[in-house]
Amino acid sequence: DCRGCGREPIIVETSGFDFNDFLRLLAIPSIERFCLTTTDRTVLDFDKFQELQDGNTLHLMQTEDQELLTATEEQISFTPHYDTLVRSGMYEYYASEGQKALPYALAELIDNALSATAHNKGERTIELRLLFDDTLGKPAVVFVDNGSGMTSKQLNNWAVYRLSKYTREDVKFKSDHQGYVRPKAVPRSINSDISCFGVGGKQAVFYIGNSTRMITRPTGFPDVHELIVSKEDFERKEKNKEDIYSGVIHNRKVGDSSHIRKESEFFLQDLIAEETEKESFTAVVITGIPPEHTTFLKNDFNSWTRELAHIYHYYIHGHNGNVQENNLKSDINIQISLREKPTKCPRVVNLREVDNDMQTLYINSTADTFEFKACTVSGGTVEGVLRYHPFLYDRETYPRGPLSLLAPTDDEVEDWESVAGNQANGRRHIFECFWNGRLIPYTTVAEFEWCQRPSKNSTVPVECYRRFSGVLFADDRFQVSTNKLTFMDLELQLHHKDTIFTRIVNGQEQRGIKKEFNQWLTSCHEHLDKQVHFVGFNGTISRTDM
Amino acid sequence: DCRGCGREPIIVETSGFDFNDFLRLLAIPSIERFCLTTTDRTVLDFDKFQELQDGNTLHLMQTEDQELLTATEEQISFTPHYDTLVRSGMYEYYASEGQKALPYALAELIDNALSATAHNKGERTIELRLLFDDTLGKPAVVFVDNGSGMTSKQLNNWAVYRLSKYTREDVKFKSDHQGYVRPKAVPRSINSDISCFGVGGKQAVFYIGNSTRMITRPTGFPDVHELIVSKEDFERKEKNKEDIYSGVIHNRKVGDSSHIRKESEFFLQDLIAEETEKESFTAVVITGIPPEHTTFLKNDFNSWTRELAHIYHYYIHGHNGNVQENNLKSDINIQISLREKPTKCPRVVNLREVDNDMQTLYINSTADTFEFKACTVSGGTVEGVLRYHPFLYDRETYPRGPLSLLAPTDDEVEDWESVAGNQANGRRHIFECFWNGRLIPYTTVAEFEWCQRPSKNSTVPVECYRRFSGVLFADDRFQVSTNKLTFMDLELQLHHKDTIFTRIVNGQEQRGIKKEFNQWLTSCHEHLDKQVHFVGFNGTISRTDM
Ligand SMILES: Nc1ncnc2c1ncn2[C@@H]1O[C@H](COP(=O)(O)OP(=O)(O)OP(=O)(O)O)[C@@H](O)[C@H]1O
Ligand SMILES: Nc1ncnc2c1ncn2[C@@H]1O[C@H](COP(=O)(O)OP(=O)(O)OP(=O)(O)O)[C@@H](O)[C@H]1O
Ligand SMILES: [Mg+2]
Ligand SMILES: [Mg+2]
Repeated sequence: DCRGCGREPIIVETSGFDFNDFLRLLAIPSIERFCLTTTDRTVLDFDKFQELQDGNTLHLMQTEDQELLTATEEQISFTPHYDTLVRSGMYEYYASEGQKALPYALAELIDNALSATAHNKGERTIELRLLFDDTLGKPAVVFVDNGSGMTSKQLNNWAVYRLSKYTREDVKFKSDHQGYVRPKAVPRSINSDISCFGVGGKQAVFYIGNSTRMITRPTGFPDVHELIVSKEDFERKEKNKEDIYSGVIHNRKVGDSSHIRKESEFFLQDLIAEETEKESFTAVVITGIPPEHTTFLKNDFNSWTRELAHIYHYYIHGHNGNVQENNLKSDINIQISLREKPTKCPRVVNLREVDNDMQTLYINSTADTFEFKACTVSGGTVEGVLRYHPFLYDRETYPRGPLSLLAPTDDEVEDWESVAGNQANGRRHIFECFWNGRLIPYTTVAEFEWCQRPSKNSTVPVECYRRFSGVLFADDRFQVSTNKLTFMDLELQLHHKDTIFTRIVNGQEQRGIKKEFNQWLTSCHEHLDKQVHFVGFNGTISRTDM
Repeated sequence: DCRGCGREPIIVETSGFDFNDFLRLLAIPSIERFCLTTTDRTVLDFDKFQELQDGNTLHLMQTEDQELLTATEEQISFTPHYDTLVRSGMYEYYASEGQKALPYALAELIDNALSATAHNKGERTIELRLLFDDTLGKPAVVFVDNGSGMTSKQLNNWAVYRLSKYTREDVKFKSDHQGYVRPKAVPRSINSDISCFGVGGKQAVFYIGNSTRMITRPTGFPDVHELIVSKEDFERKEKNKEDIYSGVIHNRKVGDSSHIRKESEFFLQDLIAEETEKESFTAVVITGIPPEHTTFLKNDFNSWTRELAHIYHYYIHGHNGNVQENNLKSDINIQISLREKPTKCPRVVNLREVDNDMQTLYINSTADTFEFKACTVSGGTVEGVLRYHPFLYDRETYPRGPLSLLAPTDDEVEDWESVAGNQANGRRHIFECFWNGRLIPYTTVAEFEWCQRPSKNSTVPVECYRRFSGVLFADDRFQVSTNKLTFMDLELQLHHKDTIFTRIVNGQEQRGIKKEFNQWLTSCHEHLDKQVHFVGFNGTISRTDM
């Protein structure tokens, strides 16, 4: 459209005209006395006019720098750049520098698979396959789960950045829509409700690689749906001035890999051949993996699988965790496999077999526990456990390790104390925190007033206050950051003066947590700490037999 | 389009038809023998067909659950949800829980103003006005700068999420486009090049409030451009199934406020009246401020302005910082004003007047400095300064405070040592870090090997190693996270074995930094630390005059 100086704005189609036609159309007596500019005041001539796209607002002026007599309205569009998807993960996972962020990106896809398998009738199987065998094609990171899969509409929604579970309409017909339902309360909130912001999967896949093929079959339907989202596609579409966020879903029958033609993708044929065994599934196939990721995944296999076993500890072991006689068999299998050269034997590990993740270490060295519950003013519930790691004969049994909140050096117990005791706020951070059953790795919570070492009149030695670790299970009322690395305000809420703590013994609430705690700690010390006392010095005896 | 079982796919327009027409059009003999489904296998009937939008892929089947004989392609669109803008800031600024995030959101808009005023001929003025006076309208947070402003195309680009300076084309005609130019090297990299990812402004405004009016006049042009982006607009557009990311730029002459009609926005009239005084400017007017923000901004005025003075310390004081006799007059004015009730006198502070921000405290207690430079393998340059805070007579002069890296309690020097010395990696974090001259608040860097306390053979007492603070100035080769709260890999790069450190004395590079440092520290101790020694005990004298 074209709006002018003093005249009423007039709407004119510019397409199909050249500059001179257009001037004639406007019935401008002589171009010498007028000039036609964009709203950026670029004076149009024959060439610039050609470059112009449709839908522009133009000003017809007497002089180039004349004031606008009437205001004009200009229609614009500001669709987010595709870096919104492509680069989102990059900066999201770097919440803290120097940290290895890749395990947390992998976790996002395991989160999705846990959500998707939540209503499975039988076993829940989540596989992470690292296909780094050149003879099968280019390097690929593949997640396969036997969950509910996605309809084509849900697959479409998968790709929509920031479409959260609260706003999503997953069906093509309004009448079929069901709103978000909050999960039921279950012990330690292991409710598999860990898909929420509509960003995790997209951020993760573009952090792991640069192209993703989603392959999915929804429960109860005969079709498989495929969607590819890739950086290259985005770049091509931008170059060709196509709609950046348009894509194509390929609908096909189960097991049909006739569309896979590139040699570099032959590993997909095996994957598609497996489809016939499953009623429903989702496979996330990520390629374009940068070499630093493949190197890390190969070389640090033990450490990142341990990290994952820690994050999902209570999903894979049940709500009591990895206790010695576990009668809470979990039906969740998270299986990791790594294939390198064809000659090299593949590495396979079920996360349940990992026995050196931090939670396992804490649990294995626990001599007694103290369970409690916290209810916050805003309606959130947190279950908590304190675990006593006694002193046995000649050493502390508090677990040590790179991921321990307390990392004492082997021989200096004195040093250990100073490390543990001197947090910024004077409180020791003892709690690892789980949200809907899943570890939120960067948030740790400081001890509460009722379990803090009293400044005087303590009935137990001070070192006992260093012998317990803790874990908190927050329910879905608490919020976490989109990268699931930190809680938003768990600590603030818990340390709020109106938060109510109660000890739980055999499912029963007890009154007076401070006293209860004190009795527990005293009893732990008296019954569990075993110290060799050297009482009464009898002089030195020289052994003559040596 | 409509693709079938066995037949070739056929493209059919569905709009304008009802279900029965459509069946006739397909020439389906009898609907009893066929069914028409969506790709989600919803069987269509008269009502569902009405609900259908154009551009759907439909399957014509013999039975509802028949396999697809030929694969079909379905066109989809996955434009990011508007929460991409609206909620982005919320989780971005919560990088660490319990932190007051608002000052960092305000900083994003000051960053933009600093970038925009970088090429100003005269004074650079950046105002932050908090209009919390009900008599003028609803609460508003307003930023005004006298920078280069934006053309309507640039204003359009402002709204595009993730359009970074590297990919942006800020002109309507390709021929006018100039690519991104790296800033020239200046002392301490105070280059005003702190606009980069295309997210900061949007995240910040939606964190601060829920509606933003951008008002801007580009240098050399007679027009003012206005654009409103608001949560309410987004919601309305979604409800009406309009294009979510479409908007309107209002082009008008300078000083024309005839479009402001709502009483709640009368404060805009004053703002627009000021326009005539400026050649170019940008005003960011944020409304819909939640009460917790207004409360914080009012009650914690001193603390958040101090925080801002700290972030921009070297912009407002020049590259030597807030030294006593400053002959490097900076031409950057960052002015904060707060208006509350009409009866209450407005509070006004120029950030340069703040004299208790951490950098000022460090600088004021410095007795000597040690300057150095670090060059990393990837081509980055970091300038560094160590500052010696001597022991004077009866106390340490190392500044203390809530924002100090070292927060010793008043009377326990012993405690102080244990706090400072026991970082996770055994190194003391002493460096505050600036990126292109701007503080990156959550990244602190540990001391380097050459300035670490040697395990033996130290020529100076150990406590001297606790008497220096440090600051690092990283250039634009280093990357920061999009929320500008942390560096991506500054610490990793600096502690890389191939990073070369050199001492700088009067602009000259010296060799052997470890030896140079040792000499400097020894000399600081010998000449600057002044201790009252009580030598020789002469017995106790009772004062009889008391
Ligand atoms: N493995 C899967 N099986 C079935 N549906 C899936 C799977 N992965 C993703 N989805 C669907 O895609 C949606 C988007 O996933 P994405 O991880 O991007 O966001 P989200 O899980 O909703 O939120 P978050 O940001 O918390 O990860 C999910 O909500 C879910 O509906
Ligand atoms: N005060 C201003 N004056 C002139 N132009 C501005 C101003 N504020 C923003 N802009 C323009 O709008 C663009 C987008 O701003 P925004 O803060 O959203 O992202 P950015 O500054 O480019 O990157 P980031 O803030 O993420 O580092 C800027 O690059 C700049 O071109
Ligand atoms: Mg997810
Ligand atoms: Mg910015």
